[in-house]
Amino acid sequence: MKEWNEIKLFIYYNIDVIFKVMRVSKEIKVGSVILGNGNPILIQSMCNTNTSDIESTVEQIKSLKSIKDRINIPLIADIHFDYRLALLAVENGADCIRINPGNLGGIEKSKIVTDACKSNSVAMRIGVNSGSLEKEILKSDGINAESLCKSALYNSRMVESFGFDNFKVSMKSSSVMMTIQAYRLFAKETDYPLHVGVTEAGTLFAGTIKSSIGIGSLLADSIGDTFRVSITGDPLEEVRIAYQILASLDIRRTGVEIISCPTCGRTDINLIGLAETVEKLVSKSTSVVTIAVMGCVVNGPGEAREADYGIAGGSGVGIIFRKGEIVKKVKEDELLAYFTEILKTDNII
Amino acid sequence: MKEWNEIKLFIYYNIDVIFKVMRVSKEIKVGSVILGNGNPILIQSMCNTNTSDIESTVEQIKSLKSIKDRINIPLIADIHFDYRLALLAVENGADCIRINPGNLGGIEKSKIVTDACKSNSVAMRIGVNSGSLEKEILKSDGINAESLCKSALYNSRMVESFGFDNFKVSMKSSSVMMTIQAYRLFAKETDYPLHVGVTEAGTLFAGTIKSSIGIGSLLADSIGDTFRVSITGDPLEEVRIAYQILASLDIRRTGVEIISCPTCGRTDINLIGLAETVEKLVSKSTSVVTIAVMGCVVNGPGEAREADYGIAGGSGVGIIFRKGEIVKKVKEDELLAYFTEILKTDNII
Repeated sequence: MKEWNEIKLFIYYNIDVIFKVMRVSKEIKVGSVILGNGNPILIQSMCNTNTSDIESTVEQIKSLKSIKDRINIPLIADIHFDYRLALLAVENGADCIRINPGNLGGIEKSKIVTDACKSNSVAMRIGVNSGSLEKEILKSDGINAESLCKSALYNSRMVESFGFDNFKVSMKSSSVMMTIQAYRLFAKETDYPLHVGVTEAGTLFAGTIKSSIGIGSLLADSIGDTFRVSITGDPLEEVRIAYQILASLDIRRTGVEIISCPTCGRTDINLIGLAETVEKLVSKSTSVVTIAVMGCVVNGPGEAREADYGIAGGSGVGIIFRKGEIVKKVKEDELLAYFTEILKTDNII
Repeated sequence: MKEWNEIKLFIYYNIDVIFKVMRVSKEIKVGSVILGNGNPILIQSMCNTNTSDIESTVEQIKSLKSIKDRINIPLIADIHFDYRLALLAVENGADCIRINPGNLGGIEKSKIVTDACKSNSVAMRIGVNSGSLEKEILKSDGINAESLCKSALYNSRMVESFGFDNFKVSMKSSSVMMTIQAYRLFAKETDYPLHVGVTEAGTLFAGTIKSSIGIGSLLADSIGDTFRVSITGDPLEEVRIAYQILASLDIRRTGVEIISCPTCGRTDINLIGLAETVEKLVSKSTSVVTIAVMGCVVNGPGEAREADYGIAGGSGVGIIFRKGEIVKKVKEDELLAYFTEILKTDNII
């Protein structure tokens, strides 16, 4: 029988296998923040106040100025069809305008808007959607990843030819695969910073999953400098999901991460309840730590070793870990009380 | 100003840019189903009945036989530590056993179990976890994607050296990035079929997002022949999420997919309500169609064109699309009633 050392292992470690594109994008400035070039990945959401009639839209855009005075995050105006609204947004203090040159009424109008951005130091998002591709591209290529990428390349190069490069690019589709493929193609071709997202992702349940796959798999390949989760639901949920995507990929954490095992035949404590209680216990903590909540002795100690804190229960015994070391063995029904004490002592909660 | 045709577009379309690994795995047989080699990707979940004491575990494994007689999906026994339980599972009709040779007590015991699988035509999952790596690997490499891959390679080659190859492989970690990287490395090295998943993914909210990113980004690269979503929660939720992951990537759909836009300033109908009503309306339909529910005229018609059916509302008017064509313009408050009629006529509901 072969021994450990006799079985030859060859792993041709190749960074290309792990990361398709180790992408470093150009830096752009959006209001007070710098985006791209390895700067922190920014999360966006979208207000859903009514902008459907021109009068109140103009009023709302004029009101950007007073909104801007009261917030310290960049404010982006999403403008379609009417280039004059884009100009108004620029004049009234938007930090960035999102346009789709394809529906803005031609090259000349795009140039007027670009010039306004340039003279007012306003950033731009060139936002291509599979639902609003240029007629020429739609005719020759149909709707696919290549045509999305082609439209984004065309519009980026057009805006660049106007002598402006303070822009980021998005290519969204409601098809997750098409979105992933379009961004991968575009990321390979250019170093423009990218705003990523899946559009019309659907209701909370489906939208969470579609956005997580689309945005998550792009971010895992270092494609994406800012992103928006879009769901048919409360914008606050979009932000909550966005933070969890960043935390899941170890890109950025804003609080405690709970690792908890699935329930299985090995679990003999109320694991779902325990994990949810711990989740509530630390929900307001800003400490960037991981806590493993494990229900058995199979993966418990191993996984708990990787976490900053861990609890594992089973057969009436509860074990508390800190940085991979067992700090206490207690009766199972005292586990939560002791663990709470330790988190308090360590100023986690 | 440059014209459309003057701006040169070069897209070096390269399948490698889109798919890191166009992976074709070997075929294996698990009970009545064939897995790998482009066969339909299988979804798994896990029972959470109590197996914590030996007596009742042995009883449960013996009861596999009577469970097997009453179900027609493959039944897999997940065995740790005690190779004799693995043997009992094989003898009592499990279609597949999942073992982690690293915790089964050495090479000799792994060989006994492998031989039993071979003579009983039982499949095997070699399931490596970051929480239970071999001591030698842990010591020399620590816990990372490479050591996970190394452990999986070591165990796969060991089992193969016993003259057995009806197995699939998993390398799970609670770190999504580590999971993705380990599978990418392993997929490049071998053609063994893969069971993918993120372990200890956490509560329903975090677990849905972590599993979607990890499993979804691997499946998007055609890595994975079967998978399990694991969450600390009801196993039925695991299956629901799993189906949505497959649907999101257009791999397999089991019913209607709703595409709905996020609410934004352009929306002037109750879109969240409308999307949820349509979702309920078609929830039991087995028709594999997409329905776009759009709240405005910007992306509405374009996205609706891609969908099999679409409704877009705004400014008191509702439009119903079928296969990209407008079939009806109605008053907004009659939209749902007319749309329901059309779905009934077409036998969708």
